[in-house]
Amino acid sequence: MSTVHESYLVGLIGDGITQSLTPPMHEAEGAAQGLPYIYRPVDLTVIGRPGDDVGELLRAGRDLGFNAFNITHPCKQTVLQHLDQVSERAQALQAVNTVLIRDGKFMGHNTDQTGFSAALAAELPEVPKGRVVQLGTGGAGSAVAYALLDSAVEHLSLFDLDQDRAQERAAALSRYFPDAVIEAVGQEDLASHVAQANGVVNCTPIGMHHHPGAPIDLSLVTAQHWVADVIYLPVDTPLIRHARSLGCPVLDGGAMAVGQAVDAFRLITGQEADRQRMRHHFLSLLAAQQGGH
Amino acid sequence: MSTVHESYLVGLIGDGITQSLTPPMHEAEGAAQGLPYIYRPVDLTVIGRPGDDVGELLRAGRDLGFNAFNITHPCKQTVLQHLDQVSERAQALQAVNTVLIRDGKFMGHNTDQTGFSAALAAELPEVPKGRVVQLGTGGAGSAVAYALLDSAVEHLSLFDLDQDRAQERAAALSRYFPDAVIEAVGQEDLASHVAQANGVVNCTPIGMHHHPGAPIDLSLVTAQHWVADVIYLPVDTPLIRHARSLGCPVLDGGAMAVGQAVDAFRLITGQEADRQRMRHHFLSLLAAQQGGH
Repeated sequence: MSTVHESYLVGLIGDGITQSLTPPMHEAEGAAQGLPYIYRPVDLTVIGRPGDDVGELLRAGRDLGFNAFNITHPCKQTVLQHLDQVSERAQALQAVNTVLIRDGKFMGHNTDQTGFSAALAAELPEVPKGRVVQLGTGGAGSAVAYALLDSAVEHLSLFDLDQDRAQERAAALSRYFPDAVIEAVGQEDLASHVAQANGVVNCTPIGMHHHPGAPIDLSLVTAQHWVADVIYLPVDTPLIRHARSLGCPVLDGGAMAVGQAVDAFRLITGQEADRQRMRHHFLSLLAAQQGGH
Repeated sequence: MSTVHESYLVGLIGDGITQSLTPPMHEAEGAAQGLPYIYRPVDLTVIGRPGDDVGELLRAGRDLGFNAFNITHPCKQTVLQHLDQVSERAQALQAVNTVLIRDGKFMGHNTDQTGFSAALAAELPEVPKGRVVQLGTGGAGSAVAYALLDSAVEHLSLFDLDQDRAQERAAALSRYFPDAVIEAVGQEDLASHVAQANGVVNCTPIGMHHHPGAPIDLSLVTAQHWVADVIYLPVDTPLIRHARSLGCPVLDGGAMAVGQAVDAFRLITGQEADRQRMRHHFLSLLAAQQGGH
C-alpha cells in the first residue's frame, strides 16, 4: 500500500533534547504540506542510554521503519563509524547531524553547515563577505566556519579562548579552502581584526540564558558590520540587540536553527520547506515554550 | 510542546506482514479523525530478525517513541514474558496482539478476542447464541472461542482435525466459563452438532486463496444457521457465499480484522474508531491490493 511510503518518521538522537524545537518545527512544516510526518525526540538522558548506543539506535530505527534521524550532541562525531556513506561536507567536518535511511543503508549529511550557508544567502544576500571574524570554534563553530568559507568569505579570523583549538580549526579548514586566508587570532589582535571585518559571527555560548553577556566588547561592533549569532535561547542576545540598535544587517540564531531544519526536511522528504513559514513556526514555538516556563 | 504527544506512532511486529491491511487501516482512520498517525509494518523476514527478538524490538520502540505495537505470528505467545502487565483476557488466552507503551511500561491486550466479540455484537446483535459449532482451534480459534463464550454462547462444540488440541482448548476454556458446556467433537459427531447449532464459525484456513474449499460439508449448513468466518483473503469464502445464498446472517472475516483494529485503535488513542468507516477502508484497501496483484 502506498500510504505507508508517503509518511515520514524521523527521530532526533541526543542528550537533553526533550525540549528541542526541531521536532515540532518539522511536524508543523509536514502538516502545512499535508504530509503525515512524525518526529520523535530520543533523549539519551530520558531513555537512560549512553551516546555510544547511537549505532544501535540507528539500526533499531531502521528495523522499526524510521526514514531518518537528526543527530546532535554528543553523537555528531561518533555516529560516523556507523554510516554506509557520508557527504563530502560532513566528511570534511567529521560531523554528521542528519542520517537518511534508504534501502536499509545509512547516509550522513551535515545540515548545520548547509543550513547556515542557505540562511546567510537567504537572509543577508547583499552583505560583503570579504572579511569575517568568528568567535568560538567548537562544534557549531566548526560547521559555521566551513559554511562561511563555502559562502565565499575570503579572510576568516577565528577567535577562541582555547587558542590551540582555533589554530587546529584554521589548519584543518585551510586544507579545504586553500585560496582563503584563515587564521587564529588571540585576544590582543581581536579588536584590530574586528575593525577590518565586514562581518562578526558568534559561535560561543555567551549570550545564552545560562551564559548571559556578550562574547565581545560590544563597542567594537559598529554600523559597518553585519552580525550573526548561533544562539537562539534567546534569539535576541545582547550582541544581536546591540547590532540591531546600530542598524546592522543581522542573522539571529533562529536562522541557523531553521536553516538546518529546512535542509534536513528537503533531504528527508524531497520537498522544499517554506523557510519563512518554518521560521514563523519556530518563533511561535519558542514563544509558547518560554510562556510555558 | 504538546504537538509531540498528540501524534501516534504504532508498529506491527510479525512474520510476513508487509502486505497486512492493519497498518493502512489504522492510518486511514487516524487521518479521518485528523490525528497524526503513523503505523509501520515491522516484518521479521524483511529485517532479518527472529521472532525471539520481539522483546528487544519492543524496548527499541519504547526508546524511539512508539506508542504501541500490534503483535502477530509468531510472537503472540512469546511476547508475554516481556510485558509489565497483561489484561485478564489476554492472560487467559496466553496470547497478546496489542502492546501499549505507557510511561515506559508495556501493557498487553488481546483485541483479536475483544474485536471478534464487538464485531459479533455490532453486526449480528439479534442472532441466537445458545449453541455454536466452531471449526478450528489454533491461534485465531483460541481467541474466537473465548469471544463466543464471552458473548454468552452456552454450548460450544469445538472441532479440529487435531483432536487433542480441541480437547485441550475445551478443558482450558471450561476453567474460565464453568457454566458453559464446552466439548471437543470428532468427525463422526460433527453433523449432529451442526444440525443442533444456531451458529457455525470457521477458524480453519480452509477457504483462503491458498487453501481453497470449505471447512465443512456445505450441505450441513442451512437457513437456520448464522455463519462466521475469520478468513478475509478472500472475504467471500465458499462458506460465506453459501450462507449468503441461503439468506443466513453472516459475519465475514473482515469483521474480525476490523474488530481487532477498532479495539486496538481505541486502546492506543483513547478515541472511538468508526467501525463502518474502518470496514469501508478495509474493503477499499483489500480491493486495491487485489487489483495490484
